[in-house]
Amino acid sequence: MIQNDLLLRTLAGKETERPPVWLMRQAGRILPEYRAIRSSLSGFKELVSTPDLAAEVTVQPVDILGVDAAIIFSDILVIPECMGLDYTMVEKVGPRFPETIGTEADVDRLISGPDAAERLQYVFDAIHATKKLLDNRVPLIGFSGAPWTLLAYMVEGGGSKTFSTAKSLLYREPALAHKLLNRITDTVIAYLKLKIESGVDVVQLFDSWSGILSQSLYRTFGLPYIERICDAIKDQTPTIVFSKGAWFALRDIKKIDGVTVGLDWQTEPELARDIFGKHRVLQGNLDPSCLLSTPQVIESDTTNMLQRFGGHHVANLGHGVYPNTPVEHVKAFINTVKSYRY
Amino acid sequence: MIQNDLLLRTLAGKETERPPVWLMRQAGRILPEYRAIRSSLSGFKELVSTPDLAAEVTVQPVDILGVDAAIIFSDILVIPECMGLDYTMVEKVGPRFPETIGTEADVDRLISGPDAAERLQYVFDAIHATKKLLDNRVPLIGFSGAPWTLLAYMVEGGGSKTFSTAKSLLYREPALAHKLLNRITDTVIAYLKLKIESGVDVVQLFDSWSGILSQSLYRTFGLPYIERICDAIKDQTPTIVFSKGAWFALRDIKKIDGVTVGLDWQTEPELARDIFGKHRVLQGNLDPSCLLSTPQVIESDTTNMLQRFGGHHVANLGHGVYPNTPVEHVKAFINTVKSYRY
Repeated sequence: MIQNDLLLRTLAGKETERPPVWLMRQAGRILPEYRAIRSSLSGFKELVSTPDLAAEVTVQPVDILGVDAAIIFSDILVIPECMGLDYTMVEKVGPRFPETIGTEADVDRLISGPDAAERLQYVFDAIHATKKLLDNRVPLIGFSGAPWTLLAYMVEGGGSKTFSTAKSLLYREPALAHKLLNRITDTVIAYLKLKIESGVDVVQLFDSWSGILSQSLYRTFGLPYIERICDAIKDQTPTIVFSKGAWFALRDIKKIDGVTVGLDWQTEPELARDIFGKHRVLQGNLDPSCLLSTPQVIESDTTNMLQRFGGHHVANLGHGVYPNTPVEHVKAFINTVKSYRY
Repeated sequence: MIQNDLLLRTLAGKETERPPVWLMRQAGRILPEYRAIRSSLSGFKELVSTPDLAAEVTVQPVDILGVDAAIIFSDILVIPECMGLDYTMVEKVGPRFPETIGTEADVDRLISGPDAAERLQYVFDAIHATKKLLDNRVPLIGFSGAPWTLLAYMVEGGGSKTFSTAKSLLYREPALAHKLLNRITDTVIAYLKLKIESGVDVVQLFDSWSGILSQSLYRTFGLPYIERICDAIKDQTPTIVFSKGAWFALRDIKKIDGVTVGLDWQTEPELARDIFGKHRVLQGNLDPSCLLSTPQVIESDTTNMLQRFGGHHVANLGHGVYPNTPVEHVKAFINTVKSYRY
């Protein structure tokens, strides 16, 4: 089976010799080898939708950086796309949706569930290709955006500082918001099941915009859908839930049985251990800005973080690695974790 | 003296018949009367630096919306400007600094303290003009950015999703960061003293980017400077500290003697009362997105918020009002507070 199974053992709650380490956005702009491939293409979406190339950039950080897991190169917005809401990725701006969801008729027009998910064959092909390239060296992580974050993009039409249009839908038309969230959730579940069938060993849910909701909105429009997804796949694969900025939801997330909890850098390890106890598996949470400092600072802050979490920990950053991070600094982070012993 | 002194009585810890109400960014794009003045000018900065016009838009929300306080129309970036770091305000993009701070020589070149603050005569003139227009109807709030937020703009050179360049300075060169923060703090103190001399009745500190720091970074590079400012002006005026997103710092902020604490919409009133007790004056915190819903939802959510805070509360939003908020919705919020009775 998988040779380096440190991540799998950690997620299963076992005691390990050291924490496994990987980085959110490890496949991407930090690596010159990625930029070389990317620059030969028409755009980001061509890379996402070309299985052999997606597989190649997925495996790059395993070869070059020595991380303990690969994460499939893809985008959370493939879900709106397969539901019938296409997007373009504008360089240095972000995603833009020419059409957005505002009415019940818009929601009714969407494809959802397996019918939608099955349209993402290129993702499943990329997973097959990646598994072949990885040749069982490390586990492969698959991911999806969480329903609230996907709704936010589909209603807002792109990135936003406030997502005020999407949030106003929750206040104005809660029933319509729930209808849309249910359709998104059906699609995410079908999609993750197909990803697992294709070979991913672990699943992570990214709720990138949970931090702009209030506790009561997140309890109503965010967490129940995450729970439904976790429940649907819990017998098939270990799951990591990363609700960025949702400090107010940690005690709720604790109740989602068995999931590993991803933490941003605002949650101090002591607070996390207070809430989750010594044995819950936690992932994170070095400040990505720390990797812009010096190898000495990185080594010292990383060691400090590992000591404070103790065991049952997956070392990672508290958010995706920033594109301008020097590769040597990323390696300093990874190598500090890899030479650490409990 | 001031006829409607509800805000002043509340900030002084007195029991009142209802909470006072004002909105962050109440003077601005939500009002057609503001847009009429603004469209006749070359830009935002012309409005900030023309005392009679700044006074006119400061008083508009008192006349049109009936709020219990005015807040001087200005910008937090007048501090970098008077220190020698000029900025331009790019429409729909935000502030841009042609030069940024990166080295000790850059810091040494800055003007600071009273020498810098005295260059902002147009702000003090605007305060005098506003006091005349207000004719003692309601109190006037003056404000400043907090030192960390000002450093963030001065080092980053503009707005940013991550402020990773500014944050990396804290990791790489903590001594330089402290030197810059000290100079900014000296300037803010001198500036606020001159504002108070010119007639403002209340001061608010905006730490708009505290929420992207970790608890330990904020304890090192944020809070000590806020404390120094509060200490320097505490005998002269009531002070409100608004550290947006800094949920991890609330227990620290509690220790800053006598200040009113501004809260974002992520901090539930019950949690705030748990931390601060029943008698500490708290300000906030309706989600600005709620004002994009309907008058019925606004009325019900506002009443709910007032009940949950209980007394010793200044009604406000949890962030600045969004520019696309209908005036009638702003009025629904204000009128709900004004008809509420403890």
